[in-house]
Amino acid sequence: MSSIFTKIIKGEIPSYKVAENEDYFAFLDIHPNSKGHTLVVPKKEDNRLFHLSEDEYLKLMRFSYKVAKAIERAVPCERVGMSVIGLEVPHVHVHLIPLHSMADANFSKKEQVSPEMFKEIAHEISRNMVY
Amino acid sequence: MSSIFTKIIKGEIPSYKVAENEDYFAFLDIHPNSKGHTLVVPKKEDNRLFHLSEDEYLKLMRFSYKVAKAIERAVPCERVGMSVIGLEVPHVHVHLIPLHSMADANFSKKEQVSPEMFKEIAHEISRNMVY
Repeated sequence: MSSIFTKIIKGEIPSYKVAENEDYFAFLDIHPNSKGHTLVVPKKEDNRLFHLSEDEYLKLMRFSYKVAKAIERAVPCERVGMSVIGLEVPHVHVHLIPLHSMADANFSKKEQVSPEMFKEIAHEISRNMVY
Repeated sequence: MSSIFTKIIKGEIPSYKVAENEDYFAFLDIHPNSKGHTLVVPKKEDNRLFHLSEDEYLKLMRFSYKVAKAIERAVPCERVGMSVIGLEVPHVHVHLIPLHSMADANFSKKEQVSPEMFKEIAHEISRNMVY
């Protein structure tokens, strides 16, 4: 069965897309730690980051770098943090999180964001994306 | 002034080293989220991950991958997670954390580890390191 991220990538579940190329898809986390919290996902489903081949892993990291730079340009924050956990959805995903304080780096506190605000943030990040 | 990590790399502050090459140094976090929690640090001091050049960033990611594979071989866990936050020490560091549950991915819960156990874990990871 397809993962929830594959359904998002295929457009079967709507998302706030911020970037895409042949192999990767980036969209806003719908339960963000902070405004601009983005997920970067390989289109090919794999469960564990460190079970990817070194080459696949580095390609994912390279695309995540480009998305992180776009977030930094679009979202005011102290810096962008990165986390890969993966215990909840078995499809590799990189969290890129605009950090203001340590609380933003934990996954216990969630920010309320309206659909209009999601749309605006996604637009801002995507127009700052340099491929 | 040198960061605490530069002092660790120079041996001015003792650490439980797990891996080292010309550009990077990896050692156990002394306040671990879980047993085997490791920090990977570039020897050159920089503050922010996404202010590294793409090339420097990818080299750090490549070394972190090798350390993560060694942790996976040495420390029983569901998977190894990765986090880069950097709000507390202004010297880029990659957290590699053996995950058993979501609690291990947050930085609020800390594990008590004895000096003997630290030594044993560092030895196990370092002997599983493939450069």
